[in-house]
Amino acid sequence: MFYDEIIDSLSVENNTKILYLIIDGLGGLQVEEKGGSELEIANIPNLDRLASISSCGLIDPVRTGITPGSGPSHLALFGYDPIQNNIGRGILSALGIGFKLTERDVAVRINFATVDKGGVILDRRAGRISTEICTKLCQKIRDNVKPPEDIEFFIEPEKEHRAAFILRGDDLYGDIHDTDPQRIKEKPLEPVAINQESERTVSILKGLLKQISVVLEDEYPANAILLRGFAKYKPLKSLYERFKLECLAIANYPMYQGVARLVGMEVYPAQKDLASEFRVLKEKFNKYDFIYLHVKKTDSYGEDGNFDKKVAVLEELDGLLPIALELNPDVLVVTGDHSTPSRLKGHSWHPTPLILNSPYARKDRVERFNEINCGAGILGRMPAVNLMTLALAHAKRLAKFGA
Amino acid sequence: MFYDEIIDSLSVENNTKILYLIIDGLGGLQVEEKGGSELEIANIPNLDRLASISSCGLIDPVRTGITPGSGPSHLALFGYDPIQNNIGRGILSALGIGFKLTERDVAVRINFATVDKGGVILDRRAGRISTEICTKLCQKIRDNVKPPEDIEFFIEPEKEHRAAFILRGDDLYGDIHDTDPQRIKEKPLEPVAINQESERTVSILKGLLKQISVVLEDEYPANAILLRGFAKYKPLKSLYERFKLECLAIANYPMYQGVARLVGMEVYPAQKDLASEFRVLKEKFNKYDFIYLHVKKTDSYGEDGNFDKKVAVLEELDGLLPIALELNPDVLVVTGDHSTPSRLKGHSWHPTPLILNSPYARKDRVERFNEINCGAGILGRMPAVNLMTLALAHAKRLAKFGA
Repeated sequence: MFYDEIIDSLSVENNTKILYLIIDGLGGLQVEEKGGSELEIANIPNLDRLASISSCGLIDPVRTGITPGSGPSHLALFGYDPIQNNIGRGILSALGIGFKLTERDVAVRINFATVDKGGVILDRRAGRISTEICTKLCQKIRDNVKPPEDIEFFIEPEKEHRAAFILRGDDLYGDIHDTDPQRIKEKPLEPVAINQESERTVSILKGLLKQISVVLEDEYPANAILLRGFAKYKPLKSLYERFKLECLAIANYPMYQGVARLVGMEVYPAQKDLASEFRVLKEKFNKYDFIYLHVKKTDSYGEDGNFDKKVAVLEELDGLLPIALELNPDVLVVTGDHSTPSRLKGHSWHPTPLILNSPYARKDRVERFNEINCGAGILGRMPAVNLMTLALAHAKRLAKFGA
Repeated sequence: MFYDEIIDSLSVENNTKILYLIIDGLGGLQVEEKGGSELEIANIPNLDRLASISSCGLIDPVRTGITPGSGPSHLALFGYDPIQNNIGRGILSALGIGFKLTERDVAVRINFATVDKGGVILDRRAGRISTEICTKLCQKIRDNVKPPEDIEFFIEPEKEHRAAFILRGDDLYGDIHDTDPQRIKEKPLEPVAINQESERTVSILKGLLKQISVVLEDEYPANAILLRGFAKYKPLKSLYERFKLECLAIANYPMYQGVARLVGMEVYPAQKDLASEFRVLKEKFNKYDFIYLHVKKTDSYGEDGNFDKKVAVLEELDGLLPIALELNPDVLVVTGDHSTPSRLKGHSWHPTPLILNSPYARKDRVERFNEINCGAGILGRMPAVNLMTLALAHAKRLAKFGA
């Protein structure tokens, strides 16, 4: 029996409420000129006070040393082991642009690429064409490619040379090898079914790919496409099925809304800013067992390498925190999905600080909410997938294991 | 997918350098009369300074509470889970004496034993005969036992009643049950093949065992042998294959050279002392991506129960540390393979202190390099097998997991 299954089997109903404040890319790194990390420098009296009356610790998003994408790291926070639930790239692409997948859909990630006259790949990213050109090419494909009857297809631009491609119809399957050979000087591969079930999907796909190659023939540099990460959409066992939690997601960006949907949360329409998210929280709090509120901009500024603006978002959040505290959730979790140190301008492997507040949480000696202080917290360092179990336990939503 | 496979799949090339200083048996235990553990008492200003500008923690060699041999504990440091990669005792015996195994070899550990006239075991260790006698008996067997054509055998003394036995030839296999019944008052077992493939090897072995029993007939107390841990040699997937690391091992003892070879490292010839090892390090540093430098004497003095001499080796190492620091590796790891507290005169299960130094390591508040201070470090406590992942992450040699 896996850890997951044990937790599920212990789950019991209760009327307690869990609130997750997820600060994207929360963890940082010290910057010498600044005198500390983003969290160490930020003026965040409310978060510090909360830390001082709570259990603190550090979470590893996926496993020690692994830098996660947002998909896997969020799945872990919600109690889904991202290694066991390794969602296909196609699905993550579609979720990432807010495409509403159905259970009749097979999704795959497209890279626009450059091939020579003989069809040999010269550049797997077509010179990183602009998102604008990508958008135009997607439209051209939509206008000129005709799928078989009963089949729909969708092609949606992502950033630069990337797009999501979705086939919709009955009895489609996604067990299909990539057409991207992952190296240049070779031709794109033919799509090949991994099992018999997927053969019909492959034959439909081949028809479409043929038409697409005609559409792109005279384009340059994006005159071909490579497909990676075919996957059929199948929502995971929902948080309601697993833990009897009626859940609401308050998140402004498509990727996070998509992951929330994947685990069966209701998703509130995107808000214009953080203050509005907190207004929604206040308004909706009573109707749900579990609310996930997502703070995006810490990650965005981390990715930009903008230390000061990441600090400013932390301070803005700190000012809004009393709204959450007044709601008095039975369990309040404040953490990140992963670290995005502005010094690294990207996601990193460093564990992210954690506050777990509840009347049943052991109060440790941590008095400031940052990476180093939380590292000395009573919760120690643990994989993020364990966090949901701890939240459920503190919410008295887990029965005893064994007699 | 296992953790191992995920790390491998994320590995990317880079020109960063990783240096591992592995202090054998590093961890100790407090001794009341001395006023602390070996590390707490040692005067190690360079290690302390390094700790104060790095991330610190504790590693469990195999798993919490398990006392490891040097083989498994080193495999873990290099990123090979010692439980999944449970190398046969025969192979470890051969590696331990520096025998250069080939892929045509099946190795097994010999215990000389005492049997009565009816062949019943009286003592499984032949009264722990001296290494000298063991050496003579091995020579006698070499001189008098004749293998079949196309087969070679090797018998090499280890310590006291132990020896390594290697069969070399085509199509030999090591899936063979032990002949050691693990108790006295029974006869040694016949070797039995676990699968068909190994049957020919067993029949060759039986011929040799018959001859050996004649050779030992008139010896006393070592008048029989017991065989344990048959295994065919197969190098592990190399560190180059897994992580694109060109590796050099600087280690003076055969066991450590053998394990380094097992994971595909190049092995520098043994040096006479620690200072010479550091000279090699300085000379060879630029040519490799990963260098493993092994400090043996801390373990040896720990095994002898010699607290003061273990302290002296730590101080000697501290004096040499600046040579490593001047090379400015991208990632510098200082840790042990396991603990060998002089108070216990042997390996122990206690976790061993760890320094991880890199521009991307979070600086924690640890200011002294010892067991207790490192226990409060930001890396917390983790299985040793995770260390390589962390080293690769800090060396920017791992891609993101998921989108």
